[in-house]
Amino acid sequence: MGGTDQARGTTRSPNETDANDNGGGVTRNLPSDGLINLDHGDPTMYEAFWRKMGDKCTVVIKGYEHLSYFSTNKNPCWFLEPKLEDSIRSLHGAVGNAETDGYTIVVGTGSSQLLQAVLYALAPQDQPDPINVVSAAPFYSSYPETTNIVRSGVYKWAGDAHGFDKDEPYIEFVTSPNNPNGVIRGPVVNRDGGFVVYDLAYYWPQYTPITSSLDFDIMLFTASKCTGHAGSRIGWALVKDKEVAKKMITFVVASSIGVSKESQLRVAKILQVVADGCKRFGSSDGDNLFEYGRNVLAKRWEILRETVKNTQMFTLPKYPLQHCNYNGDLTQAHPAFAWIKCKDGMEECEKVFKGVKILVRSGRRFGSDPGYARVSMMGKDEEFNGLIERLSSVIQICNNDD
Amino acid sequence: MGGTDQARGTTRSPNETDANDNGGGVTRNLPSDGLINLDHGDPTMYEAFWRKMGDKCTVVIKGYEHLSYFSTNKNPCWFLEPKLEDSIRSLHGAVGNAETDGYTIVVGTGSSQLLQAVLYALAPQDQPDPINVVSAAPFYSSYPETTNIVRSGVYKWAGDAHGFDKDEPYIEFVTSPNNPNGVIRGPVVNRDGGFVVYDLAYYWPQYTPITSSLDFDIMLFTASKCTGHAGSRIGWALVKDKEVAKKMITFVVASSIGVSKESQLRVAKILQVVADGCKRFGSSDGDNLFEYGRNVLAKRWEILRETVKNTQMFTLPKYPLQHCNYNGDLTQAHPAFAWIKCKDGMEECEKVFKGVKILVRSGRRFGSDPGYARVSMMGKDEEFNGLIERLSSVIQICNNDD
Repeated sequence: MGGTDQARGTTRSPNETDANDNGGGVTRNLPSDGLINLDHGDPTMYEAFWRKMGDKCTVVIKGYEHLSYFSTNKNPCWFLEPKLEDSIRSLHGAVGNAETDGYTIVVGTGSSQLLQAVLYALAPQDQPDPINVVSAAPFYSSYPETTNIVRSGVYKWAGDAHGFDKDEPYIEFVTSPNNPNGVIRGPVVNRDGGFVVYDLAYYWPQYTPITSSLDFDIMLFTASKCTGHAGSRIGWALVKDKEVAKKMITFVVASSIGVSKESQLRVAKILQVVADGCKRFGSSDGDNLFEYGRNVLAKRWEILRETVKNTQMFTLPKYPLQHCNYNGDLTQAHPAFAWIKCKDGMEECEKVFKGVKILVRSGRRFGSDPGYARVSMMGKDEEFNGLIERLSSVIQICNNDD
Repeated sequence: MGGTDQARGTTRSPNETDANDNGGGVTRNLPSDGLINLDHGDPTMYEAFWRKMGDKCTVVIKGYEHLSYFSTNKNPCWFLEPKLEDSIRSLHGAVGNAETDGYTIVVGTGSSQLLQAVLYALAPQDQPDPINVVSAAPFYSSYPETTNIVRSGVYKWAGDAHGFDKDEPYIEFVTSPNNPNGVIRGPVVNRDGGFVVYDLAYYWPQYTPITSSLDFDIMLFTASKCTGHAGSRIGWALVKDKEVAKKMITFVVASSIGVSKESQLRVAKILQVVADGCKRFGSSDGDNLFEYGRNVLAKRWEILRETVKNTQMFTLPKYPLQHCNYNGDLTQAHPAFAWIKCKDGMEECEKVFKGVKILVRSGRRFGSDPGYARVSMMGKDEEFNGLIERLSSVIQICNNDD
């Protein structure tokens, strides 16, 4: 990395200051492209699929429709559109990734709101001390900030579940496949007085083999990562215990008096189209979202692995081959994020990327090592191609400099 | 009310148990209609107006549109749809109820989410004790529960602003016109170390004379009560201080990673149609929402006052005649809620209504006297007509019993 300072000195322009601040600085020989933001998991790779679907998912809403706060009087979750509930049950049934019989469905403004609703529902309200909230590192970077944002007296972030040794009640978030590293996980604390909440945002066939239909007590999903409709802010929880579900509903009411009807109705239509299409494999219509997603991600992972192999600079996780009940073959995971480790002795991984004007999220944000960074694999083609191009340049420069 | 027990004894059926529990019980001679829910402020009276508008506000969203979390990179509120921002500024300009020049607009999932965002933004994060949150009774019934739901360590509900005598920092919610009683209000604490937040959900010409274009530091609005689109969950804050706005944005991101794009785009279209139509008075098209709303509410208030006058059982607030800058004439308020007081010595006002199967909200919920109840005036015609019919029956029965 001997060229770092020189490169940094020659390529800065006023507009690039932010991008290059603290950057690894290896920007010579790169096209003068702008910043590529792969920090967020913005699932825009799905846009091409939905374009191809044409008008199948077009929604039309007239000015006089859906004025009321209420969606149904037949459900304790009175703000849940019945069509969305039907589509959710239909989709899980078609994919076989989660049971829905006997579960109450609670809809939220993204699964972010449901995370907080779950904490509120599970935390005892009558205790002097807040309940501990843990997750095994590397954990989803939003858990600590969402848990602690208003310094709740009923729950508090208590860090990495691996290090949790207090003899106190706790709530453990189990993200599976895990964000950031794509690994299938189970709880690690496994003690009395604990609640386990499964965050299954990525438990869909494009990302990972579906090995069983899960039936945990509380399971969270989101349209953002299932179909790519992140802008709609629709998440749902499958909740076994009716009382827990009721408390979650109380939270969503206090927090936002329900959830956008427009988003619910649109996502209802989209999930139903996905459910209908997902039983057809290799169809010439190409209307199987999961097949599309898996093809795109598999190809991207192949290219990324090839690029990374050309150097000793980075390493990527490996995933086992497993039988996927959904598509019936042996497959490995193609996660939504690449959890990239820079080789030992290199500077912070996030900075290396910043040096080539790619924003990624430092391992530190996930309770892990800054030698790691999380890179979104769900961007548009041009973003992914830019990533590969710039990574190749880093490799070339660094190899030349060695 | 001598007939209460007899009536209760004769009219119960298994299906009516909930409605009659603790009820005043004066249900004889009433049509056997179901429960009328005027507890919530569900603004369904606007449906008829929007039906008349036909396709003017129809939105069409294709499956591939608005997948991203992001709406703009030109605004710190990156999840705010530019079209919604334009419509909000355009509408306030057309109505003249609030200044927008120099204000940052923060969009929220209803103004409920923005209330919490404001608390987070204003509360000092580095203090051992939470800041006091107050509002003058009768105050909006959601303030206490929304403030205290997760027992925040940075803010806590401290009750009626009239009784706040601590020499400590505070945040005062000023609801104007007030929910529940429709009165125009200002802050009551008026001490150093205080923040004032204006909740202006009802500061629109159908409810109250617009006497000036307000320019307070923080002003909250919601589509729910402006246009009737409560199901869309769109609120907005006009915020003078950019740093406060940034913290509010941080809260909305942590809480729900932004706000439904579908709702924003639909409300953008609706607000623009309202802004365009609201400069035409007495138009044969009848496309002025505020004129429509005022006509409906004025008529309903007239009928309600007439009904109430026929007895000594209830009293209603009186509102002064004021010059409305928006429509240029002398007018009085026609609030979204009737704040009804039962005559002294009567049982709890809420129970009197429950006795005729009308759900209303007890004065107690607003930090006030159970001799009062809040009754929504924004329901559909059949709900309002049912209210009048049943109130007339109560009056008749009680007068006969005297």
